[in-house]
Parts: sequence; structure tokens; C-alpha cells
Amino acid sequence: MGVKGVANDRTVSSLGEFGLIDHCFKGLGKTDVPGISAGVGDDAAVLLVPRTQDLLTTSDTLVAGIHFTQETDPRLLGWKTMCVNLSDIAAMGGEPRWCLLSIALPPETPLAWVEQLALGMDDAGQRYGVALVGGDTSATSGPIVLTISMFGVVGHGRAILRSGAEVGNRIFVSGTMGDSALGLRRLLGVDLGGAANTEADGTFFVDRHLKPSPRIDLGLALVDASVARAAIDISDGLLADAGRLCDASGVGADLDLGKIPLSPAARRWLENGGPDAWQTLLTGGEDYELLFTVTPGALEYIPAIAANLGLPLTEVGVITEQKGIRVFDHGTPITMQGSGFKHF
Amino acid sequence: MGVKGVANDRTVSSLGEFGLIDHCFKGLGKTDVPGISAGVGDDAAVLLVPRTQDLLTTSDTLVAGIHFTQETDPRLLGWKTMCVNLSDIAAMGGEPRWCLLSIALPPETPLAWVEQLALGMDDAGQRYGVALVGGDTSATSGPIVLTISMFGVVGHGRAILRSGAEVGNRIFVSGTMGDSALGLRRLLGVDLGGAANTEADGTFFVDRHLKPSPRIDLGLALVDASVARAAIDISDGLLADAGRLCDASGVGADLDLGKIPLSPAARRWLENGGPDAWQTLLTGGEDYELLFTVTPGALEYIPAIAANLGLPLTEVGVITEQKGIRVFDHGTPITMQGSGFKHF
Repeated sequence: MGVKGVANDRTVSSLGEFGLIDHCFKGLGKTDVPGISAGVGDDAAVLLVPRTQDLLTTSDTLVAGIHFTQETDPRLLGWKTMCVNLSDIAAMGGEPRWCLLSIALPPETPLAWVEQLALGMDDAGQRYGVALVGGDTSATSGPIVLTISMFGVVGHGRAILRSGAEVGNRIFVSGTMGDSALGLRRLLGVDLGGAANTEADGTFFVDRHLKPSPRIDLGLALVDASVARAAIDISDGLLADAGRLCDASGVGADLDLGKIPLSPAARRWLENGGPDAWQTLLTGGEDYELLFTVTPGALEYIPAIAANLGLPLTEVGVITEQKGIRVFDHGTPITMQGSGFKHF
Repeated sequence: MGVKGVANDRTVSSLGEFGLIDHCFKGLGKTDVPGISAGVGDDAAVLLVPRTQDLLTTSDTLVAGIHFTQETDPRLLGWKTMCVNLSDIAAMGGEPRWCLLSIALPPETPLAWVEQLALGMDDAGQRYGVALVGGDTSATSGPIVLTISMFGVVGHGRAILRSGAEVGNRIFVSGTMGDSALGLRRLLGVDLGGAANTEADGTFFVDRHLKPSPRIDLGLALVDASVARAAIDISDGLLADAGRLCDASGVGADLDLGKIPLSPAARRWLENGGPDAWQTLLTGGEDYELLFTVTPGALEYIPAIAANLGLPLTEVGVITEQKGIRVFDHGTPITMQGSGFKHF
């Protein structure tokens, strides 16, 4: 990896735009990523998409004061900025390859902060096989704004869309729901209110919030086995993203509250969490797990995929002809207000 | 085109993130752009790069207060945001295809402003054959930040890099230099000081600043005719970008001040422009013309390309073994301070 990590007391203005790119970002990520004919340093990157594959691309922006705070560890922020984009590639069943970074920085930003950010991006690039191939930096009078455009590849015609869900498909989610929402609350100083929760639980929640694991391997396995009809990553909470997948597919869903997978820590919190507890878990967002749908005939393949990946894959409901998302608790319909994180 | 242009007094916060995307950005750009298997509305776009072509990608950010002001016409800003990125695709010899938009907006941003921005982006998408395929919007407490990632395609192995210039290559530029720099000065209220300049000249300068024309057709012609060894777009001024191309190629350049193409308006201004006049023209930036190098044996093809495109292509110097950029005025070396626009 080519990222330098020399902390000092200089600010980014001492290096200028191109010095900053050379110092912090050149060589970021995995070094042997295929398909890079020209990377950082030309007017545009020149990339080779294999003949049998389609290109996937997505971008996500993180804004200081909205998505992170001054106190956020910049190395973890670099990791997370990469991973929120990687999660979108995972939801399509793609293999990550390249990324662009655009970053607007106040001139007084410490150089050490940017170095740590780059190290965190590099951590994720190394882990998931992504190389930085371009981008730009700019000054701003306002908060730091980070935009990553992420690129992946997937077999031609094999990307898993949101729009493929069919009535009768079973709905699965990976991992556990709501841990990240509780981690954010803890970081914001909100009393979790759960007398049952230990310090270790709190650390677990915060880790789940700051160090998401994009489910790249799951997406690849779903494509390999051709078992998913539709998929979406859960970034705005299970209810909101289930709603989006259903809208795109022209269907609805019945979800079973009793089946929704929770971590032991979240289950402890739920016992003392009050009447809005489920809502926090299902609408808090930033789970970065995958939701996908499977035909009844393909259900038998799911346990082996889960076992291979060491990742729980849990059936939480069924796709219905009736539009909208309904949640049942032991057969009784329940209502929740709000369904996700609203940006404006 | 699918962009709606209904002015009203609402702010972006009244629509929310996804409403804003649906209202302003869905369907933006040309409708029949090839290669879009899935566009706006899934976790990632699914794109088809033709088997015989390489993918080009670049991103550029515009920040309010740095690259534009509150007074900037949002429709022109939308045009320009697209065109600064298209200019990078042009410099590689590419054909534009798709783009992603990431936009951070204060909640109080008038919806009409965003609608006009989208219309300007659509203008450029229509003109240059680009469709929006994804992106995201976010709130911010600071200035508006716009990031576009632009995609193009070019024949496999045929992208024109910065690094291909060879000693003895002749250096060409398209169009005229410095008009945009004078336009920016005029917009900022700086007295242009040229008694010879008319109101029409001022309008011309401002137009050149606000409505750049990315030289897509020139890039395509250079690739078709295989005449350019290296190319770069002139975004930070002729001297800075010539320096960058030379650095990437491990060479230097001698430039002839007397040959540098100026518009009649810029020539009138130069006559009264004072001792720093040339420096303004060559370091002011945002020309968005192309600089490219040609072997002596291929010089004969340039006039026909210029005539076909109706675009002046002017020889301004020669690539040298000696590194660095030297400027001569009738054979006498001259010195200039600074070589471009510095962001931090």
C-alpha cells in the first residue's frame, strides 16, 4: 500500500491540492487490482471491464455534522466512507474494483487528519480489493464533504436488482438488525436506558456503527448460486429498505417481528427499551446488511451459503401482492411511525 | 428529457432526499444513451462497456464560495459542472456516456434553484450525449457542494494520456487562451482596465467563463486520426497544464508567446492590460481547451481537423529534452510568477 502515515502539525493548505493528492492518496488501496490501464494522475482513469462482465457504479457522500462529527476517528471514517459504497456493490452481487474520491476540506484541516482518513480508506481498499484511480480535492468554507464513487463488476446480466422480487418470495436478511442505531445513540450520548446492557454491549454497538462490514462475499455467493430474485442493502433501516425493494418490484411484504434477527446485546437492550424500542432497531439505519428475496424452491440452498460465510441469513417474511410493508407480532399486525432516516 | 422545471417557493427540505431525486434528477440527460442496463433507483447502476472499448472515469467537485457564488445562475452552473468533467473525458479522446451526481445542500436551498441546476445539467447531457445513472443527495450546514463523476468510452488502448509527449513533438492548443480568466475578473467586479474593451467584449469574456465548451469532438478526431501523442485539458491555465503534461512525460517545453492564440477581445484587453496581462491570460485557468502534442510527421493532418471542427488549432511551442516550461517572446526568454490556480 502506498499511503503515508506521518502525523505532524501541518494543515492541508501547506501542501496545496496536488501535493495533498500525492502525499495522502496516491497508491491508496490494493496494488494488484486488475483492469487499471491509467490511474491517478491523468485527466481521467482508463479502466478495463472484462468482456463477460457488466460495470457497477454508485456514489455516496458523507458530510461532517450530518454523517459524522469532529470527534469521529478519521481512520474509522475512511473505512466507513469506503464501506457504505461497497455495501451498494454487495447488494448488486458485484466484485469491487476501483474508486474515485472527491473531498472538500477547510484549509485549516490538520494534515494528520487527512492522513488517517486515507489510511482508513486504504484499510478497506486492501480488505475488499479496491484501488483509488482518481478524484479531486477542493477547499471549502464549510464542513468536510467526502464523496466516493465506487466501481465493481458482475457477470453480464447477472446483477441482482431491487426490482426482481415476486409474490411468494421469502425475505431474508443477513446479520443482525439495529446494532448500529444503538451505537449511534451511544456516541451521541443518549442514555440507552437498558439496565441489562454492559459496557461490552455498548462497545459492540459502537463498533457496529463505526466499522460496518459490507457483505461482498454474500452478494457474490448469491450471484454464484443464482438464488436471489432481488436485493438491497439496509442503509436506512429494515422497514425503509424493504419498502424500497417492494416499490421497485411492484409488490408488498409481510414481516414477522419475532423472526427479525437481533444480536444478544440488542436483545438485552430490547427488554428494557420501552415502547419505541423496535422502531429504533428497524428504522435507525446504517446496518449495511443485505435484504434479499428467494423463491420457495431455492430455500434449501440458503443454509449452506450461511454456513460457508459464517454469517446468519434469516428468513423474516414473505413478498405479497398487497403493496406496502406490514409487520406482525405473533400474527397480530402492529404499526410503526416513520420508516427510516430522513436527510433534509 | 425528464427534468421538471416548475419554479416555486419551496425549499429542498420539503421534498426529502428521495423526493428531490425523483423530482429534479430522474431522467436527466439524453434518453437514448447506450449501455444502461439499470440507472437511477437501484443500489448501483449497471452499465455495459462495449467489448472493444475502455472505460474512462473522472470526478470534479464545485464548492459554493470557491468555484461559484450565490449570484451564479444555477442553470449555467449545472452546465458548467457537467462540462468541467466532460473536458477531462475530451482530453482522453473519449466519448461521454454516463454520470453520477452527489450533491450536498443546505435544507433552506430553494427548490427552484435545484430545478434550474438540473435543467443546466440536462442541457449539457442532451448536447454531449450523457445520461445521469445515479448519485445521492445530502443535507449540509455549509455551502453547496456538487460532485459529478463522468464516464466515457474510448477504443481499447487508444486513450490519449498525459505521459506520451516526446522530444520534438509540436505543442498545439485549441481555441483561445485567457478569455475565461477575464470573464471571472469581470464577474468579481475587478476593473479590466482595458479602455479598448467594449461591453460586448465583457459579455464575451463572461460567457466564456460561464459556458465552457468541452472539446469532445476534437478529442474524438485526434483519436480517429491517431495524431496526438499526449493531451491534457487546460483547466488551471496554459502554463500549469503544459507543466503537468511535461512532468507526466518526463520532458519540458519551449512556448512562443507570439503564437499563443487570443480572441480579438483578449487582444484588445492585452494592449492596455499592464505588465501582468500575459500572466492573467496564461495562469487564470478555466479555459477548458485542449493542449496536445503532435509529431512533426503528423502536422499535415491538423489543418483539416481544425477546418472540419470549425475550431482553431494553433501550434504554440515544442517539447524539449530540458525539463520545465520556458516562454519566449520573439526569441527572448521571459519569466512569469505562479503558474495556475491554487485551491488551498
